[in-house]
Amino acid sequence: METGENLSEMCIVDSKTIDSIVKELEIDDIRSASIRQIGAVVRAVEARTGVEYIHFEMGVPGVPPSAVGVKAECEALQRGVASVYPIIDGIPEIKEQASRFVKAFLDADINPQGCIPTVGSMQAAFASLMLVSQLDKKRDTVLYIDPGFPVQKLQAQVIGVNVASFDIADFRGKALEAKLEEFYAKGNIGAVLYSTPNNPTWMTLTDEELEIIGRLSAKYDVLVIEDLAYMTMDFRCDMSRPFEPPFQPSVSKYTDNYILLISASKIFSYAGQRIALACISDKLFARHYDSLKERYGMARFGAAFAYAFLYSFSSGVSHSAQCAMAAMLKAACDGEYNFVGDIKEYAERTARIKEILLRNGFDVVYDTDGEEPVSDGFFFTIGYKDMPGGELLKELLYYGISGIDLATTGATRNGIRACSSNIKPHHYAMLEERLELFNKNH
Amino acid sequence: METGENLSEMCIVDSKTIDSIVKELEIDDIRSASIRQIGAVVRAVEARTGVEYIHFEMGVPGVPPSAVGVKAECEALQRGVASVYPIIDGIPEIKEQASRFVKAFLDADINPQGCIPTVGSMQAAFASLMLVSQLDKKRDTVLYIDPGFPVQKLQAQVIGVNVASFDIADFRGKALEAKLEEFYAKGNIGAVLYSTPNNPTWMTLTDEELEIIGRLSAKYDVLVIEDLAYMTMDFRCDMSRPFEPPFQPSVSKYTDNYILLISASKIFSYAGQRIALACISDKLFARHYDSLKERYGMARFGAAFAYAFLYSFSSGVSHSAQCAMAAMLKAACDGEYNFVGDIKEYAERTARIKEILLRNGFDVVYDTDGEEPVSDGFFFTIGYKDMPGGELLKELLYYGISGIDLATTGATRNGIRACSSNIKPHHYAMLEERLELFNKNH
Repeated sequence: METGENLSEMCIVDSKTIDSIVKELEIDDIRSASIRQIGAVVRAVEARTGVEYIHFEMGVPGVPPSAVGVKAECEALQRGVASVYPIIDGIPEIKEQASRFVKAFLDADINPQGCIPTVGSMQAAFASLMLVSQLDKKRDTVLYIDPGFPVQKLQAQVIGVNVASFDIADFRGKALEAKLEEFYAKGNIGAVLYSTPNNPTWMTLTDEELEIIGRLSAKYDVLVIEDLAYMTMDFRCDMSRPFEPPFQPSVSKYTDNYILLISASKIFSYAGQRIALACISDKLFARHYDSLKERYGMARFGAAFAYAFLYSFSSGVSHSAQCAMAAMLKAACDGEYNFVGDIKEYAERTARIKEILLRNGFDVVYDTDGEEPVSDGFFFTIGYKDMPGGELLKELLYYGISGIDLATTGATRNGIRACSSNIKPHHYAMLEERLELFNKNH
Repeated sequence: METGENLSEMCIVDSKTIDSIVKELEIDDIRSASIRQIGAVVRAVEARTGVEYIHFEMGVPGVPPSAVGVKAECEALQRGVASVYPIIDGIPEIKEQASRFVKAFLDADINPQGCIPTVGSMQAAFASLMLVSQLDKKRDTVLYIDPGFPVQKLQAQVIGVNVASFDIADFRGKALEAKLEEFYAKGNIGAVLYSTPNNPTWMTLTDEELEIIGRLSAKYDVLVIEDLAYMTMDFRCDMSRPFEPPFQPSVSKYTDNYILLISASKIFSYAGQRIALACISDKLFARHYDSLKERYGMARFGAAFAYAFLYSFSSGVSHSAQCAMAAMLKAACDGEYNFVGDIKEYAERTARIKEILLRNGFDVVYDTDGEEPVSDGFFFTIGYKDMPGGELLKELLYYGISGIDLATTGATRNGIRACSSNIKPHHYAMLEERLELFNKNH
């Protein structure tokens, strides 16, 4: 008790206040709490104590929504689209522009037919996982390349598909091949899922690694679900010019057995409107499956994706949001909307935060892609000595800093995930002061 | 061949043109085609022949979207909501107003907490069916009170939950009780699903029938999913005044084991924006299930509904559409927006169409609620002599009239479903002429 009280005096927030709020919110252990639970704790602590937190836990856009999108969406509403059911697999304009967009920024060739809007990448991933789980009874497992976005594992739980996973950090480069084959050889893997740049670590897969994933997807007939929520946000190189290299590295260069998930949430700061694209390779789109024919009377993968899954999930995507997305994609392809420039600020914030972290005894846990340091971007990882992530999170909360435990993302390394998106200019000095105090006390 | 040619001369559209388009679209048999397939055939025939169809097949709003909704949605976009993730279980304003709305128009008491926006009623139904299927292994079947909306059965197919069903037309009133008990007594029914007013027949359940459904739901612990997509559209009585009887009849009067699905698509003509409400009774919302605790670490039905299912389906509903819905609900409750008046036109159209039908040898197949004729409204049913629905549909297509076969909705009676929403003033004379010709030739 004595120690607790002394400790709390030295912190930014009284630890007893936090502990009692955690209890009130019926959270068994803050160290393994979900993002949503941590958000709830921090908001309650702020309300009760008046202390402003540094909200590293929130992975939400911290810049205004695309002006191109907002303008187009309002115009569409004024035209009366609100009463008209959207076409399930997308209005022609969004399909056309999405096909251009993947060419312009990924150098990928996908017919408009296979470019399908979804209610966020969340719906695209849900549809992909559920559809994959119904193709072949023997392939009842999805391989997640971790660390990853915890909610994509919750999706598997909801669907009832099995999950296999490994932390890629120790299998970068050539080592990835043997690791993947170890899983694929069992014959039970229907799909592999990963994000690049990666949520939570911001590691970005190299062309060498994507080539391996692509080649093995053909060899073992494993469908690749590539989550490109943060595409072009590896700011080490400038991918902002449409139809010009460098392009966003993608598995679509190395296989024709893929679905790309392209969300408007981060690249266009359009998270509120729940719109994304599932871009299905031409070959996969047209592929016939007896299992689908039998269950839905539709043999083609692409047809089942849209007319069995998306139709029964939500009858398609908000009509006005589709108009907004089409306009944003078009303006980006036409070189009239430099969306990469709009979000580059995240990298500048992250660079400044990392510098403060390193100066105060903290480190970046997942720090390299091959030989290179990871890009500064939206997410980054924080470690402190050999402190387990849950412990570090719990302690940092006492110092007015939040985050999420990397262990919840399938990471094997100790640390927390942080996001720079909600950092305002006055937070840097605050962060410096709090980390200095933390470091002094530990 | 001779006969075929003579016949086609007497029709409005050359039958050979239609038959060849059906073939081109790879439709095995037009008589059992889906709504989407029939729509595709009719559009293709119109494009090739220049003949305008009477589009009875489309159940889409035929009046402009709610001006209240469009205004609020544009204002929300201008405020910048497009970049901000919507709260998963709904922004406070929509929850508050939804709770008022169910009181105002259903006389139901549901806390704001249990009033949750969804991406259309399609998502609400999908979440309800999937959640129900995971509560108790023994209860692996959902009972559909048919005729019904075919896509809700597709949802069961996608989820993998079993379906039982019966046509209610022969079990109206007191007879419903024995029929339901016949199913419930087996112990495998987890939920019962129906719409009232009904898509496709426009039959409306009476208070006597709703009382039976409610009472048995308690007796057998069967969850009731009541689809109120067409609430207040039984125009035989005026339900347009908030907080005043008559109210929309609903099972919520007779049980506390329900989810109400309230879509903005028809009542507010807001189908394009994909927004609805799942309104979960207070008791069901708070009910603990060990199965949910085990699978999701959340025991409460309402928590799992939002934070396991809706979260993993789409991370919630378009932020601007939530603002629109909140504004429409509020204006309706405040008596400032007479939404029922806005859509009453459907009833006037239907009355006129029925009169033309009856004069030309056709009849209304599902024609009564108890002693009373069904209301004129959005959908109605058409029969001709004892012609099977698929046959009637195929024949009517030759006369420039479309619809969908009632057999696809689980109906036992012969006929087609028709909708008055897209009927324009010049269609009445056209309909008269075509039906007269049809009747003469049959």
